[in-house]
Amino acid sequence: MIAEIIAVGTELLMGQVLNTNGQYLARRLSEAGVTLHHQTTVGDNPQRLEEAVRQALSRADVVITTGGLGPTADDITKELCARALDLPMEPNAEAEAMVRGWFVKNGRPMTDNNLRQAVFPRGARILPNGYGTAPGCIAEKDGKAVINLPGPPRELIPMYEQSVAPYLAARSGAHLVSRYLRIFGMGESQVESLTGDLMRESVNPTLAPYCSTGEVQLRLTMRCRTPEEAAPHLDRLEAQVRQRLGDVIYAVTDRPDDSMERAAVEALRAAGKTVATAESCTGGLIASRLVNVPGASQVFLQGHVTYANRAKESVLGVRHETLAGFGAVSRETALEMAEGLFERSGADICLSVTGIAGPDGGTPDKPVGLVWLGLCTARGARAQALHLTGNRERIRTLAALHGLHWILRAARGQDI
Amino acid sequence: MIAEIIAVGTELLMGQVLNTNGQYLARRLSEAGVTLHHQTTVGDNPQRLEEAVRQALSRADVVITTGGLGPTADDITKELCARALDLPMEPNAEAEAMVRGWFVKNGRPMTDNNLRQAVFPRGARILPNGYGTAPGCIAEKDGKAVINLPGPPRELIPMYEQSVAPYLAARSGAHLVSRYLRIFGMGESQVESLTGDLMRESVNPTLAPYCSTGEVQLRLTMRCRTPEEAAPHLDRLEAQVRQRLGDVIYAVTDRPDDSMERAAVEALRAAGKTVATAESCTGGLIASRLVNVPGASQVFLQGHVTYANRAKESVLGVRHETLAGFGAVSRETALEMAEGLFERSGADICLSVTGIAGPDGGTPDKPVGLVWLGLCTARGARAQALHLTGNRERIRTLAALHGLHWILRAARGQDI
Repeated sequence: MIAEIIAVGTELLMGQVLNTNGQYLARRLSEAGVTLHHQTTVGDNPQRLEEAVRQALSRADVVITTGGLGPTADDITKELCARALDLPMEPNAEAEAMVRGWFVKNGRPMTDNNLRQAVFPRGARILPNGYGTAPGCIAEKDGKAVINLPGPPRELIPMYEQSVAPYLAARSGAHLVSRYLRIFGMGESQVESLTGDLMRESVNPTLAPYCSTGEVQLRLTMRCRTPEEAAPHLDRLEAQVRQRLGDVIYAVTDRPDDSMERAAVEALRAAGKTVATAESCTGGLIASRLVNVPGASQVFLQGHVTYANRAKESVLGVRHETLAGFGAVSRETALEMAEGLFERSGADICLSVTGIAGPDGGTPDKPVGLVWLGLCTARGARAQALHLTGNRERIRTLAALHGLHWILRAARGQDI
Repeated sequence: MIAEIIAVGTELLMGQVLNTNGQYLARRLSEAGVTLHHQTTVGDNPQRLEEAVRQALSRADVVITTGGLGPTADDITKELCARALDLPMEPNAEAEAMVRGWFVKNGRPMTDNNLRQAVFPRGARILPNGYGTAPGCIAEKDGKAVINLPGPPRELIPMYEQSVAPYLAARSGAHLVSRYLRIFGMGESQVESLTGDLMRESVNPTLAPYCSTGEVQLRLTMRCRTPEEAAPHLDRLEAQVRQRLGDVIYAVTDRPDDSMERAAVEALRAAGKTVATAESCTGGLIASRLVNVPGASQVFLQGHVTYANRAKESVLGVRHETLAGFGAVSRETALEMAEGLFERSGADICLSVTGIAGPDGGTPDKPVGLVWLGLCTARGARAQALHLTGNRERIRTLAALHGLHWILRAARGQDI
């Protein structure tokens, strides 16, 4: 089954609103084993919207629209979809009861134009909206379906989960199972040169890369009739990839949005260890990413942003002579930051970061991008220099990733 | 001039990556007075990509693609655009020098497949990439242009600003001068109901809102023949807006990506004041955003992430009885965090945040979204509760914004 998504709205087209619905629907469709070839965004323009719906119907089995179900003259999605399907529009008693009920329940006066929201293509299945006035619908004709969903994510998501997901599952009968290998410490092109043949030759499951700042992820996707069939096939492909890439795979997960910090927090919890951080150039980024993982409170004891030298001394006990003699960005300072934190925090794993994120502050000796990481545990302290490139934000992001990776490895008892 | 955006990449199509480039480009095109009718996302599929490019060329003057310029076999955008324009692909010496130079500069080994990134449509203008290996290009034929940009935003944005914006300005012949009013403490719909008539009736300059989590920005854009003409017109419209909105406008700037933290750092520098932070639920987000402003080191003394109660006691000196009697999320704890920080850090402005970001940890008394802010300066300490809504990430983002806004107002000597 092939689906296509059309996002309707001038505010989306012009970039005033970010199209997060497209991402949400794409993920859910892919999890449901529905194939997606196109996503399109058009404004509130009748002619272009109708053309987009007709084109989508010519190449997909199911067309999902988002937006344009409201009460104003701009809200034209249902009418134009009905026209593309050659179905008449008519008042729908079930939908009218829903719209009227919403206003009663919310104690708000209803204006006449709200009844536009109760007019639907003939024979459409009405989808209740628990969080807004506009019901959605599924209109079918000649084996094709058009699904109209509201624009606000808080209305769209429950409607999808409640009404659309069951409809598509019943309609399709195929499952896609994905597994994600998260890679740190190897660039995209090197991953590709080591596994390119597998990417080209693997048909089911397929193998595909995608990368974000500092990380590469490989997605293994198996199309099957029952979810249970997938595991042995994915295991075999994963083993082949592991043989090529080895140690750089730091996590295997079934969710596409996993993260280094989640892996680190899980490893800390599994090991019953705690962590504390002392950050200079990353300025709290590592702490913030750790705290963003639900449940981090069990393992994250404290973090410090010691950006100024004075704070490195007063908060962490870095010696004045160390800062004066070696500088704030040095092996010695990184070590004393981690050691001081270890003494003061009581955490099992203490990480320090000090570096030059730029754009200013670089010297020939210590250029922008030089970052020292330090780590102190009961086994002792060590430090290492990173030589990072890019703008300030990228250098900070990469330094934070490296720091989180150290925490992950330390929590797992692996060598740093 | 009509443009069309095509985002290329299976990871975008399937929703693994959110298409923020589409929003960025749409905004910049609209600021440049370029009309946009369609945005499309397609996967790494040659046939569908070529069809999408051909269709876009049939209805637009300029087609901008994002993604698919990398070194792997998936990266097919340039080839298929060249085919749609009926131009041959050939190695480009200028681009090859850029690619080789990038690897030399970054001290990384270059694999052969990277030279794919130096093959371009004949006659194309090469666009340098300061932040990655893949140059972009502008290929023209029969009065139409295809612009190929890389997928990663940190490569795409500088390339757009440096090379594409001037190209489009030269092509269209008009100058657009924009001014941005940044608003905090008033929602989008209220801003719209207070200034909606100006938005509808202002033609040149135009007035348009953008909103992001917790903030609204109004853009005033003047189309003129020389940039110097703009100021008096923009001044007049700004005065009208100020009359309606008053105090909620916290900054006026000529860049669309300005931020609360930049305003705060500038205000601190102007006042010669320093700041320190003690964060619980925001987990270092405020410190991290402050440190991301170049030059923050002059004003930001230290930050602490005291997520655990033990850390609130040991790092900030919050009394055990306070935590036991009132809880970690309380006026009393917020005040003692700020006061303890003031005593220890020596900073002029000390901010504390403690709250419940969820999804767990809420109670009927202290629901998810309850956040206490505390502030201590030489004038004394005060605290205030926020009642925020949304998921964990949104609550943390909003709490951080409120905290940065307090710092900004305290630095300016305004009431909190």
